[in-house]
Amino acid sequence: MLQNFKLIIEYDGTAYHGWQRQKDDTTVQGAIEEALQTMTGKFVAVIGSGRTDAGTHAVGQVANFTVDTRLTPEILKKGLTSLLPEDVVIRDCEAVHPSFHARHDALSKVYDYCILNRPVPAALFRQYAWYIKANLDLDAMRMAMVCLEGQHDFSAFEASGSPRSDSVRRVMSLALTGKDADGYVVLSIEANGFLRYMVRNIVGTLVDVGLAKISPKDFESVLISKDRKQAGITAPAHGLCLREVKYGSHPPLAG
Amino acid sequence: MLQNFKLIIEYDGTAYHGWQRQKDDTTVQGAIEEALQTMTGKFVAVIGSGRTDAGTHAVGQVANFTVDTRLTPEILKKGLTSLLPEDVVIRDCEAVHPSFHARHDALSKVYDYCILNRPVPAALFRQYAWYIKANLDLDAMRMAMVCLEGQHDFSAFEASGSPRSDSVRRVMSLALTGKDADGYVVLSIEANGFLRYMVRNIVGTLVDVGLAKISPKDFESVLISKDRKQAGITAPAHGLCLREVKYGSHPPLAG
Repeated sequence: MLQNFKLIIEYDGTAYHGWQRQKDDTTVQGAIEEALQTMTGKFVAVIGSGRTDAGTHAVGQVANFTVDTRLTPEILKKGLTSLLPEDVVIRDCEAVHPSFHARHDALSKVYDYCILNRPVPAALFRQYAWYIKANLDLDAMRMAMVCLEGQHDFSAFEASGSPRSDSVRRVMSLALTGKDADGYVVLSIEANGFLRYMVRNIVGTLVDVGLAKISPKDFESVLISKDRKQAGITAPAHGLCLREVKYGSHPPLAG
Repeated sequence: MLQNFKLIIEYDGTAYHGWQRQKDDTTVQGAIEEALQTMTGKFVAVIGSGRTDAGTHAVGQVANFTVDTRLTPEILKKGLTSLLPEDVVIRDCEAVHPSFHARHDALSKVYDYCILNRPVPAALFRQYAWYIKANLDLDAMRMAMVCLEGQHDFSAFEASGSPRSDSVRRVMSLALTGKDADGYVVLSIEANGFLRYMVRNIVGTLVDVGLAKISPKDFESVLISKDRKQAGITAPAHGLCLREVKYGSHPPLAG
């Protein structure tokens, strides 16, 4: 019986060269395909909602795959969980309509970027946050961020050397938390799509605002310039986490 | 100039065979002594407030060492931080009275034990919490815990095969948080001292109460029995974190 399954996947990206299968490197997609091959006896291509960078984490990556099997979603979830290493967890497995496609059907994605901002670094949780010693002016960062909302050409925040393509994306919402008792700050950003390194380049440039190297007005000029050379550094991958991928309601499975 | 320095140390115990220096294994004490040797050109023995188990973390371990040096606490802190690996952080360094002794002067210690309790394990933060799938009855655990407060012979919760010695300790306070939105639960326990594996054996046995394998009344019987064989399993080391070591006010440094 040909079935289409949707997975929700959490992974610690520390040990992985990102999501996408690669010939010689360990990737999350590769690990899941290997586990699926063990369970079903055949190669099953897994379609992710999109790539994540080497070292970047996810709590809500979504993927789907079509396979001729009688295995139930519950059995697949249990089996995959027991076959996969501890740093990849199948949070949910569901049989979905044959037309569901994790990449094409994604309406938006939500990323969190975590910064630790205090005088002393942390030994614990250090693989999940970018450490910045100097005190960040969060209000200035919030002021700068506002210009990102809505539809824009985000070329200035795209990885340099990216192939020419459409660089217009729509940011639905973004927010920067206050500093918690331990000094952690989280930037959340939801958009209908992200260019390569977009969040990390935005964060790197926002941190320049927070350190008063550039003003909120300068930040807006960077966006308008569409020039990657105007933007700040690329924030490290390990502070980034794909929190959620959102979809419309897809047609129900015929019972 | 002979100086006595007090350190507050945070470490991720994942890669360490505990605090205490060992001949062939990597330990936190060993790493700090090595860094101190690089800075001062001589071997400096570091005195910790006490051991921690292999794989156990700390955010507030305390240690002291006496060395003939003109280095200031600030320089020592910076130097050690840059020499030590990322998983050991010197949170504070202070010059203290020559009589201060991190182990002898400790009045009490506070440990946190973190449990993740939900249907699905976590990929992120997994090295900082013990995962338990079945729903824990936290109220039953709280009911059971009460008997631990005050002064008791904790032999029942001491590592089996420990050398015979005084097993009486005083628990000043203990508390179990409610489950947070992600399913994390933290047990905090403060005592004037801890036997080997004491927190981990208490947690392992409390979890038996949470799973209704034994009653709160049974838990009290375990304590009273002073018999290690009555207690539950030893909870894994990686859920445990030494939060704080408390001292009285020590004499001021002659200016």
